[in-house]
Amino acid sequence: MTYDQLIYNALLLTMEPGSHPWYQGYVAIQGGKIAAVGQAEGLKNLPAATELWNAGGNIVMPGLINCHCHGAMTLFRGLADDLPLEQWLHGHIFPAEGRWVDFDFSCAGTRLAAAELLRGGVTTVADAYFCAAGARQAFQESGLRAVVAQGVIDFPAPGVPEPSDNVKVARDFIDLGRNSNSGLITSTLFCHSPYTCSAATLQQAKAVTMEHHLPFFIHLAETRQEVEQSLRQTGLSPVAYLDSLGLLDEKTVAVHVVWVDETDQNLLAARQVKVCHCPESNLKLASGIAPVAALLSKGVTLGLGTDGAASNNNLDLWGEMNLAAKLHKVAGLDPTVLPARQVVAIATLGGARVLGLEAVTGSLTQGKEADLIVVDLHQPHLTPLYDPYSHLVYAAGAGDVRDVMVQGRWLLQDRQLMTLDWEDIKEQTSRWSQKIKS
Amino acid sequence: MTYDQLIYNALLLTMEPGSHPWYQGYVAIQGGKIAAVGQAEGLKNLPAATELWNAGGNIVMPGLINCHCHGAMTLFRGLADDLPLEQWLHGHIFPAEGRWVDFDFSCAGTRLAAAELLRGGVTTVADAYFCAAGARQAFQESGLRAVVAQGVIDFPAPGVPEPSDNVKVARDFIDLGRNSNSGLITSTLFCHSPYTCSAATLQQAKAVTMEHHLPFFIHLAETRQEVEQSLRQTGLSPVAYLDSLGLLDEKTVAVHVVWVDETDQNLLAARQVKVCHCPESNLKLASGIAPVAALLSKGVTLGLGTDGAASNNNLDLWGEMNLAAKLHKVAGLDPTVLPARQVVAIATLGGARVLGLEAVTGSLTQGKEADLIVVDLHQPHLTPLYDPYSHLVYAAGAGDVRDVMVQGRWLLQDRQLMTLDWEDIKEQTSRWSQKIKS
Repeated sequence: MTYDQLIYNALLLTMEPGSHPWYQGYVAIQGGKIAAVGQAEGLKNLPAATELWNAGGNIVMPGLINCHCHGAMTLFRGLADDLPLEQWLHGHIFPAEGRWVDFDFSCAGTRLAAAELLRGGVTTVADAYFCAAGARQAFQESGLRAVVAQGVIDFPAPGVPEPSDNVKVARDFIDLGRNSNSGLITSTLFCHSPYTCSAATLQQAKAVTMEHHLPFFIHLAETRQEVEQSLRQTGLSPVAYLDSLGLLDEKTVAVHVVWVDETDQNLLAARQVKVCHCPESNLKLASGIAPVAALLSKGVTLGLGTDGAASNNNLDLWGEMNLAAKLHKVAGLDPTVLPARQVVAIATLGGARVLGLEAVTGSLTQGKEADLIVVDLHQPHLTPLYDPYSHLVYAAGAGDVRDVMVQGRWLLQDRQLMTLDWEDIKEQTSRWSQKIKS
Repeated sequence: MTYDQLIYNALLLTMEPGSHPWYQGYVAIQGGKIAAVGQAEGLKNLPAATELWNAGGNIVMPGLINCHCHGAMTLFRGLADDLPLEQWLHGHIFPAEGRWVDFDFSCAGTRLAAAELLRGGVTTVADAYFCAAGARQAFQESGLRAVVAQGVIDFPAPGVPEPSDNVKVARDFIDLGRNSNSGLITSTLFCHSPYTCSAATLQQAKAVTMEHHLPFFIHLAETRQEVEQSLRQTGLSPVAYLDSLGLLDEKTVAVHVVWVDETDQNLLAARQVKVCHCPESNLKLASGIAPVAALLSKGVTLGLGTDGAASNNNLDLWGEMNLAAKLHKVAGLDPTVLPARQVVAIATLGGARVLGLEAVTGSLTQGKEADLIVVDLHQPHLTPLYDPYSHLVYAAGAGDVRDVMVQGRWLLQDRQLMTLDWEDIKEQTSRWSQKIKS
């Protein structure tokens, strides 16, 4: 058997449950899938392959999975910060979105996002925004694996001037996506929140995703104000309210989940709702600290997300890993909470489970697609090496990702983008930012 | 007038109070000092200089100032994480220190630290450890500006087997440093904490620093346990206890300062004590969240520190800036706390004031020494650009530092170390880590 590709001389972290690091690891790839993983020293003991890639003793691991992103908002990166939430949203972000977001904006902004995601070692991203067809096109060009969700909200929105069309627009987006499916892109929808979508909108949207067994995304219990408003208006917490509408099941991905009491937590666990944790966004917007240790102890499946670049301000999942590991230690005054390996698992296989893609990606094992990254260890801040998981969470950064492969195809090599044209992206971004500034 | 060097085509952030970004900025350097700063377009409108450096439109700003570091502990990076504090300290860190730390360890570990600090854009570091002569040698080789402090503790320590010698050893270290002063290195001492040094030791140590007008460093009010123990044993909080010993003044740098009530905060402000905030260490060790917004509102001068690589696990001040900006927003549920520019000021001029070096470094203005960095903006995650301060705090990372200059000398160019031999550091580190692992 001669494989298509063999990556060898790797410090291999498969992230399969119970696995141990392999210090002379290899990954053999055939037809975009992982055909074999193992460890062996010396070329003559390795499987044969047409293309050989020497990992140089660096870490080879599953790519990171970003479970919540508004990629196009990279074009608003740093436009407004450090403001009260209302002023930030209504004085800056909503007006800028209303004025500028269309298909071209979404495509240009998502191309920029894809460039950043790739250089940060992300191989799968769940993106949610308006004019999502533009985002879908950009992700297709990039070669990334993406779950692209069309935004649904009961206000006039970019591309959906008439709110009553919102679910129909999302359904059309999904239908078109199903016909053009490359195997890398899943098209679905995202309801903005329980307080910006009516009960009817939420239920109609959920019905569309159920019909095609798609993930259903929603921002949930992000701020204390949201909970207070929900209690006033429905007599229920946001979580209990969604449950009363029949919206909570194993295909629902609840994003943020900051203000949830124990009853809410138990309900999320019982319904097998997936949770996307966005710690940097929660801190920057002063939303609060999500009770992650409690959710995990109840068996909730958790992934990490960056949120959009207007509230973070990058798409760097290494920062989210680092912060998640530390934040929940201090929140519980317990340094044993969220140890490094668990955090890496959350950012890889955890994310795949959140998105319903665990049969396809999230760990390096025979039969899954070859979505992997190489992390350059030969740098002062990653020296010496006692524990690779510790380095990934507590010392490494997005700039340490050397190579990225999705479905057996190199999308980043030696930090150079292989599918996207960075000079063109820079020029397009400059055009957009000149307009936005003016 | 022809200057030695001219850095031009810079997005210049001088960090002088009240200054604005200059988008065609330049810095002229003469004899290691800043001779002029300004803005002008086109080479013919610029001052003449022997050496011309095109900053390529990138950010040129003062180097970052790391106010608390145990550089040699890089050799323990990732050796033990995610453990209860007692087990981490007494089961891992103290035994490893007892077994391995000597002059050679301190020198080798600090060389590795210096390499990381330079690649992360630090131009001044305050380092505190045992066998500090080794650290001083390494910093001298690196060309960094450093305040090197010999550790003082009332237990047998590396290099000081007899605790009653501790202040004498520190005094000798300081005396030797004064004779070999290159202008870049300040030698002083660091008392480990109020609970590991007797009143007599603390007062003798402070007297040594006062004699030579040197900064006096001490870990203070880091954990709740420390405060409870202090109240039990002295009837006073750690801050009030140090004040009762006459130790609090404008040359005292209190590190951590997590568990301080309003009375403590007022006392620190009244005595003009400088505070070094180490948010990543405080989170990873689950110490707590320092009341930084309150301290700042009382006029306390604040700098940032990384702490050692055993409790962080890198020496990346960008991560500290990012976390500080976000953490205190969520702590107060107020997104306007610690806006980006204020955080950059804390990490530069603030740090210089903490170390008593504000006449020498911390901002780019005529007469100060030329300690500066170039931050590479031409990357996806720093594109587009609306606000440079926002990018530095919320989007940039250590890997974005392209060049570093201290006292007019390039120590890093295009991410290559100019003064330190990375291959040799790697080899020495590997030798140490093999021994430590065994």
